[in-house]
Amino acid sequence: MSLPLAPLLDARSLVIVGASADPGRTGGMPVASLREAGFPAERLLLVNPKYDAIDGLACHPSIDALPFAPDLAVLAVRAADVLPTLERCHAIGIRAAVVFASGYAESGENDGARLQAELVAFARRSGMLVAGPNCIGFANNHTGVFATFIRHIARRREPGPIAIAAQSGNIAALLRNLGLDSGLRFSCIVSTGNEACVDLTDYLAHFAADPHTEAVVGYVEQIRRGPEFVRVALALRRAGKALFLLKVGSSAKGAEATVSHTAALAGRDVVYRTAFRQLGIASATDPHRLIDLVRLWRTGRRPAGRGACIVSLSGAACALMADHLARDGVAVPNSSPATQARLRAVVPTYGMVANPVDLTGQVTSDRSAFPAVLAAIAAADEFDAAVFYVMGELLDVMAPELLRAAAACEKLFIVIDTAEGATCHDALEAGGIVVFRDIHRASAALAGIVRWRADPAGRWEPGACRSGTAAVCARPEILRAARAGGRRQLTEVEAKALLAGSGLPMVSETLAHDADAAAAAAARLGWPVALKIVSPDIAHKSEIGGVRLGLADVAAVRDAHARLRADVARQRPEARIDGVVVQSQVVGGVPMLLGIVRDPIFGPVMTVGFGGVEAELDPDVAHRLLPVDAATADGMLAELRRSRLLDGFRGSPAADRAALVALMVALSDVMIALGDDIDELELNPVLVLPRGCGVVAVDALVRLSVPTTGGAAAAPREPA
Amino acid sequence: MSLPLAPLLDARSLVIVGASADPGRTGGMPVASLREAGFPAERLLLVNPKYDAIDGLACHPSIDALPFAPDLAVLAVRAADVLPTLERCHAIGIRAAVVFASGYAESGENDGARLQAELVAFARRSGMLVAGPNCIGFANNHTGVFATFIRHIARRREPGPIAIAAQSGNIAALLRNLGLDSGLRFSCIVSTGNEACVDLTDYLAHFAADPHTEAVVGYVEQIRRGPEFVRVALALRRAGKALFLLKVGSSAKGAEATVSHTAALAGRDVVYRTAFRQLGIASATDPHRLIDLVRLWRTGRRPAGRGACIVSLSGAACALMADHLARDGVAVPNSSPATQARLRAVVPTYGMVANPVDLTGQVTSDRSAFPAVLAAIAAADEFDAAVFYVMGELLDVMAPELLRAAAACEKLFIVIDTAEGATCHDALEAGGIVVFRDIHRASAALAGIVRWRADPAGRWEPGACRSGTAAVCARPEILRAARAGGRRQLTEVEAKALLAGSGLPMVSETLAHDADAAAAAAARLGWPVALKIVSPDIAHKSEIGGVRLGLADVAAVRDAHARLRADVARQRPEARIDGVVVQSQVVGGVPMLLGIVRDPIFGPVMTVGFGGVEAELDPDVAHRLLPVDAATADGMLAELRRSRLLDGFRGSPAADRAALVALMVALSDVMIALGDDIDELELNPVLVLPRGCGVVAVDALVRLSVPTTGGAAAAPREPA
Repeated sequence: MSLPLAPLLDARSLVIVGASADPGRTGGMPVASLREAGFPAERLLLVNPKYDAIDGLACHPSIDALPFAPDLAVLAVRAADVLPTLERCHAIGIRAAVVFASGYAESGENDGARLQAELVAFARRSGMLVAGPNCIGFANNHTGVFATFIRHIARRREPGPIAIAAQSGNIAALLRNLGLDSGLRFSCIVSTGNEACVDLTDYLAHFAADPHTEAVVGYVEQIRRGPEFVRVALALRRAGKALFLLKVGSSAKGAEATVSHTAALAGRDVVYRTAFRQLGIASATDPHRLIDLVRLWRTGRRPAGRGACIVSLSGAACALMADHLARDGVAVPNSSPATQARLRAVVPTYGMVANPVDLTGQVTSDRSAFPAVLAAIAAADEFDAAVFYVMGELLDVMAPELLRAAAACEKLFIVIDTAEGATCHDALEAGGIVVFRDIHRASAALAGIVRWRADPAGRWEPGACRSGTAAVCARPEILRAARAGGRRQLTEVEAKALLAGSGLPMVSETLAHDADAAAAAAARLGWPVALKIVSPDIAHKSEIGGVRLGLADVAAVRDAHARLRADVARQRPEARIDGVVVQSQVVGGVPMLLGIVRDPIFGPVMTVGFGGVEAELDPDVAHRLLPVDAATADGMLAELRRSRLLDGFRGSPAADRAALVALMVALSDVMIALGDDIDELELNPVLVLPRGCGVVAVDALVRLSVPTTGGAAAAPREPA
Repeated sequence: MSLPLAPLLDARSLVIVGASADPGRTGGMPVASLREAGFPAERLLLVNPKYDAIDGLACHPSIDALPFAPDLAVLAVRAADVLPTLERCHAIGIRAAVVFASGYAESGENDGARLQAELVAFARRSGMLVAGPNCIGFANNHTGVFATFIRHIARRREPGPIAIAAQSGNIAALLRNLGLDSGLRFSCIVSTGNEACVDLTDYLAHFAADPHTEAVVGYVEQIRRGPEFVRVALALRRAGKALFLLKVGSSAKGAEATVSHTAALAGRDVVYRTAFRQLGIASATDPHRLIDLVRLWRTGRRPAGRGACIVSLSGAACALMADHLARDGVAVPNSSPATQARLRAVVPTYGMVANPVDLTGQVTSDRSAFPAVLAAIAAADEFDAAVFYVMGELLDVMAPELLRAAAACEKLFIVIDTAEGATCHDALEAGGIVVFRDIHRASAALAGIVRWRADPAGRWEPGACRSGTAAVCARPEILRAARAGGRRQLTEVEAKALLAGSGLPMVSETLAHDADAAAAAAARLGWPVALKIVSPDIAHKSEIGGVRLGLADVAAVRDAHARLRADVARQRPEARIDGVVVQSQVVGGVPMLLGIVRDPIFGPVMTVGFGGVEAELDPDVAHRLLPVDAATADGMLAELRRSRLLDGFRGSPAADRAALVALMVALSDVMIALGDDIDELELNPVLVLPRGCGVVAVDALVRLSVPTTGGAAAAPREPA
């Protein structure tokens, strides 16, 4: 559940507590900026016992002296005075407040943590909406309420359809400034501060419903309530509102900086990236590139990966652009024969028409080619984007034709101009043509928007089991026994029994307690067999000689058993030994790994990839939030760099991809059915046999969740 | 050999042939710009029968009417008139010319190719230096000679130490403009055009000796004379002059655009990148990022990878920067305890001192911390670079301390300011502190300069054999026999015999012509053995059943032999069969591939990497120009993503890395000793056995060079 934030963000009257006549102070800046922007005096109240009036406006000695209860209180007072002030505000019926003060949880000191806990308790008790603390506040361009002490933000600009929500005041201001410079206009700009009572997800939920907002641009250090964030992101997606997020903390040092900054835990970057993809969130790694994506989105033109046409008057520019698009993964297909014919009629013989289209320097003197070239490109179905690298004054010459062509088609038009002198940039932007001054950024932006639009993972919907299999956990007693024994990890034998009981294809095996039993079991299973030590205390069995492979007869089994037990006993004398598992050794097959780990923020996440010793050194894996259906599983396999290994490569038979997909869906179902009981499931290796022969999981690991659930995300905020 | 270009680039007097009074024309622009820049009239001659005078300067009717022979002729005449004009220039003693005209080889038409061949023939015959054709000319800021029709370039600017040489006039102009905007100053700016007579390497050789030039910035579509380019690049490196190159054509579409543009072949991108690294050339993928590297170089500060300190007033900015540097491979080490102690004395408790250093917003009100912070960072030995992300007016406040700290140390100081309002940028730049407006570019530039400085591959020197082994080709008769037979590829047996004869560790094997011989050979070699078909017509043996592995006794050999011959006969009935090779089957070892291919531009290039079926799907390889010595070989192995596989990973024994290194050096020696005779050597797989057990090459491929050498680089230019 998200908090309804209208009383806060849509407030139409406000009181500034701690108002000051000095615009350099946090209590003075809001007064100055609201007055400057012409905010109606009758809806602006001031409180400060030191003044009678500020800038001709009455200044009241206390909250209780106010002539009426405004919608919002802006608290420019020190931390120690915040709670008593909020109590008075609440008493007179004020429903929302912004707290600028720092010295709370972010201080890393006990006093700060205590103050924040008291703030949370007050908000819960009173039902008052308290934004911050330690925030720069917000600015609503529609209502004209600038509840912030940052001058940049509190300047009147025409309102627009884009909201900003940032877990950093500096980045909120930066995103706004970069956006304004690029012609974007904003509905509301919010910095979330410590998120003691209102968090980023609450703001996103508000914007999902806000009729003024068509897109949200955000800066994220940590999502505190994953499931609610997922719900809100999907609500935005369903409402056709775009969400653009800049997430930091991908590096250890970056995560450190966020932890220190917000006193909150950063999550696993790969899970964030996975979740963003699946939720249809566009992301970038820095503010400039995030705003670039918004600029392309704003055109309303939606390239979906058909490819881009490159047009220039310089072969070198064509080559530069083609290299960049290739590096960034944007298709640069050949022009169709029809397009080539139209272009060839006007492009000199030494120009190019097959894409890139090199008009050559000749068009500098003979510009009559422009209309025909642009008409041909506007009409070319083989492209859904076009990049025009045209420099300086010549762009001015081409601009009218560019605008005409853009209006005549749905393609995304991008212009790159790395020279000075052109005066048409604003006109091009107004016509929905995005102008870049930097090749690299243009290419990255186009690639980003295409990837965002074309990613099939972005059509994910949460939901229940997908395979339709009814009985997904036939052996609940295994889990109960482990819990009863106080264990968090099942033995390999238990894990396989649990998963086999849920219908997953586990390798045939028998637990044996001595050499005789092992030999008998081997004879029953058929040759060759493998032996593996079973112990709750040993994780990497093969490293201590606890695995013997390729045993072809009884003598070999007896011999291997003796040496295996001796090696294990020598290297891990303290380990409890349950016995030795005798396993039918599957020959051939592509070794894969398949696992699900519960992320503290986003819940269960599946990983699939190529297994073996290299998996750790050079992972080739794909991830998805659960549930994983067949199409999603297929998409994950297609993402692997070595995906073609499964199709039969260089004479090896095609692998049973369908069986692997079915196993992925089944494992997703099992995880969902087992619910909160399980933190981790891993099948490694899964041998993918030749087509028609299925898959076999040779080893399994099951880790139970910690008995007391909740609080894993370490969110200081209490759910409202 | 490179041409001595002083008569061209250092010309002090010139004649403009085809001079015009219209500055919009190619014959008018040079006149206008030279006059505007105050070029002495007594050294500027004009030729055009249509005018008596232009801008008060006498205009002569013909070359022969000139009062004296100037150093340089600038030809603004159409292609058909070029050669007759050059003949007259030569006749009166002019030694150098610039030809603007297009319509030569770049036109893709026969007439153009013929005109270009005639131009080359004339230059060779006359000894005259002819730049172009199809070029925008050059501008020498030291002499004031602007022999170009591009207005941007022909504007007087104070001369500086950086030369530009570009295979595109547009990019030459762009690099100049971006550089000027960044405070760089240039000695000479050249566009090379079609390079009919003078090529990029000639210009680089000139700048290597030019006392005015300390660095060269270039744009490359194709290097025409690899060996000479290598010599010149090394000469620049030895002279302590930096070479910055932007190379296009990494993508197929990009290469297409260059081919069409310059009518020359683009080379293999990976070889260019390898050569650039080894020659100590700094490179980037677009003009902005190339100029960024030059800006960092110009400071004279040379971070070599110790690491960067990040300083900001915003935790978010710290996190953003840390993430970027991590992604780009720049170390962000912890501050030393001493540095932390100095910082902690002035940074608030909720700030960070361990790097990133988050001064917190508190310094906005209390700026007394700046001097102590900056002194601590200047003194910190654990960093050789520091990145200050400080926005807007606050940067102005910090600037004097930044300049003081920069002067007090050798560290590279970078400032990022993504806001408006600071007025100190120029002062910072003047003090050797580089200011960026974009996080991404700042990080990429720092990473680029560190990579350039720290790359051990950049200390490569060409030379002869490195292993000291005397006899590197004991079996020249094998090559002679193949040549006599008109074959370009040796059979596997011949290839192995040749390489074994050169002292390389090839697998033990015997050629057998029937099952009896195979069985006898197997018994002699020891078990298990492998059988492989030997045929000059079959490349991928295993795909048609031509390889049988793991044969453990005589019966297995006989059976496998029969089935192998039958399979091959069925699938390749037309193939000539030399017999079956019986091979001692090596058990275990890490399979690698090792090969050398002769690049048409840069000569032999070694590739080493992990072998097996995945090598093709997901290559993990390293490359180097020859010769490869032991340190280089070691460096190549260290570059592999899965390098640690060789060190013994997860219980497997450490591989004999030293033996692999020795094999790499030996193979390099063999290739050099065999000289021009060989185009390709490949050992695949090479099994790297456990430490102390050596390496064994199991299969080998040797391809001879085409009998007629020369012309491989398809260079239209004739060596002077």
